[in-house]
Amino acid sequence: MEKPGYLPPKYLFKALGARVIGVPVDSEGLVVEALPAEARAVYVTPSHQYPLGVAMSLSRRRALLTWAEHNNAVVVEDDYDSEFRFGGRPLEPLQTLDSTGRVVYVGTFSKTLLPTLRLGFMVVPPSLREAANKAKHVTDWHTAMITQSALARFIDDGAFARHIRRASRTYSERHEVLTAAIMRDFGDYLDLVPSSTGLHIAAYARRASVDHIDAIASRAFDLGVAIQPFRVEGEPQAGIMLGYGAIETARIAEGLRRLRSCFDERATRRPEAA
Amino acid sequence: MEKPGYLPPKYLFKALGARVIGVPVDSEGLVVEALPAEARAVYVTPSHQYPLGVAMSLSRRRALLTWAEHNNAVVVEDDYDSEFRFGGRPLEPLQTLDSTGRVVYVGTFSKTLLPTLRLGFMVVPPSLREAANKAKHVTDWHTAMITQSALARFIDDGAFARHIRRASRTYSERHEVLTAAIMRDFGDYLDLVPSSTGLHIAAYARRASVDHIDAIASRAFDLGVAIQPFRVEGEPQAGIMLGYGAIETARIAEGLRRLRSCFDERATRRPEAA
Repeated sequence: MEKPGYLPPKYLFKALGARVIGVPVDSEGLVVEALPAEARAVYVTPSHQYPLGVAMSLSRRRALLTWAEHNNAVVVEDDYDSEFRFGGRPLEPLQTLDSTGRVVYVGTFSKTLLPTLRLGFMVVPPSLREAANKAKHVTDWHTAMITQSALARFIDDGAFARHIRRASRTYSERHEVLTAAIMRDFGDYLDLVPSSTGLHIAAYARRASVDHIDAIASRAFDLGVAIQPFRVEGEPQAGIMLGYGAIETARIAEGLRRLRSCFDERATRRPEAA
Repeated sequence: MEKPGYLPPKYLFKALGARVIGVPVDSEGLVVEALPAEARAVYVTPSHQYPLGVAMSLSRRRALLTWAEHNNAVVVEDDYDSEFRFGGRPLEPLQTLDSTGRVVYVGTFSKTLLPTLRLGFMVVPPSLREAANKAKHVTDWHTAMITQSALARFIDDGAFARHIRRASRTYSERHEVLTAAIMRDFGDYLDLVPSSTGLHIAAYARRASVDHIDAIASRAFDLGVAIQPFRVEGEPQAGIMLGYGAIETARIAEGLRRLRSCFDERATRRPEAA
């Protein structure tokens, strides 16, 4: 798995008895040459790395597929929010680039519609279909038909595509406002990670804020600003994710003003009082 | 687990790495004294044993709880269809009799309403709540809110209770018609297992039909009659389940006439042609 990465599947894999190893991520995504040879499966978020937001470069995608073929491993491509894209052209998914049938493509309607729907989908290569069907069967037999049918109708009618187009305009505006403000007003505290898709941006904390990132997030929460801190296991790195799926564009400035006050408050404290 | 028993959880437990051991069932339910001492969890269907349909006697319920306490084991009580009851008084659930907090009570709306809803519930003792919450979280975070909210409203309005009362009258009629016909017309082929709840009855095949039960079920299916054969692992026993959740009462007689023809067909064949 990527390090930093998305934690829920890590807990799931560990609960199922898998040994989970974190592999570094840089500005091109997962560092393929750092993958351990004994890995049987690689879980990645190439479209919009979680939490950093970087897109995996085309050369890395090719390198990952070559590595997977060489090591006879499966790749799980979690493409959780790339339906929302703000400029730039999307790179081909691993699942499209794959010619050896070893990529499982995973998508969700949690970001495009509602997390409370609990609807997602997998595109499974032929060699894994029987196993995937069995896994689904022992897990919950099948997913609720009522919401699936309603969603299918929503898609067939073209309403889903219209929703994505309309929502993309809104999210694009928020992404732009938020990105510009972080670069302009938080340069002393945060290093923004460039991104052009999805519903959140990420920023690494500059050295002085690393130790305090959880306290800053907690204080911000008390002020009504919910940011998500992340840490890089075993490394002196940390950062925050700023989601803009659920905040009105007009309220972003006030939210950032409050967040800035939390950073300022920490920065002016004496270290021994921290 | 019970032997014969419900297979989907068996596959689930095995997929999760558990070693699953079948324990015999008699006319009083699970034979508690046959439980292996090393078992950490016991999965039972005491209200309406699946597939046989017998209710676990009160003395067996008490014995199972005593055994579980002595062996520090958990009991999973799957009460999947006892909302429909036709005469007799229900025995106390294990979960109610349990004073040591080791019974997980599991229910479903698949039988009372619709299997396509995929809604059920668990009553978890305090000592297992944190583990159950974590297991749910890694599995699917939470169940879809839309169907849960609709169901909660349906229950709060009293519509669910009215539905159960109305449906019970219909199912009771079907249960009576089916039970009487099996005893009257299938005595040479089947031994009915008495039951007074649920949506299916079960019958053991008499000796001559044991080997052919799958072929008979398959032939009946071709004639439009879906019965479910079951076998007892490692024993020369087999039988069939007859569900009446989805057949109109008026059509039961014709269904049984066709089923009878499948048994007759097998019985008149020469053994070497079987």
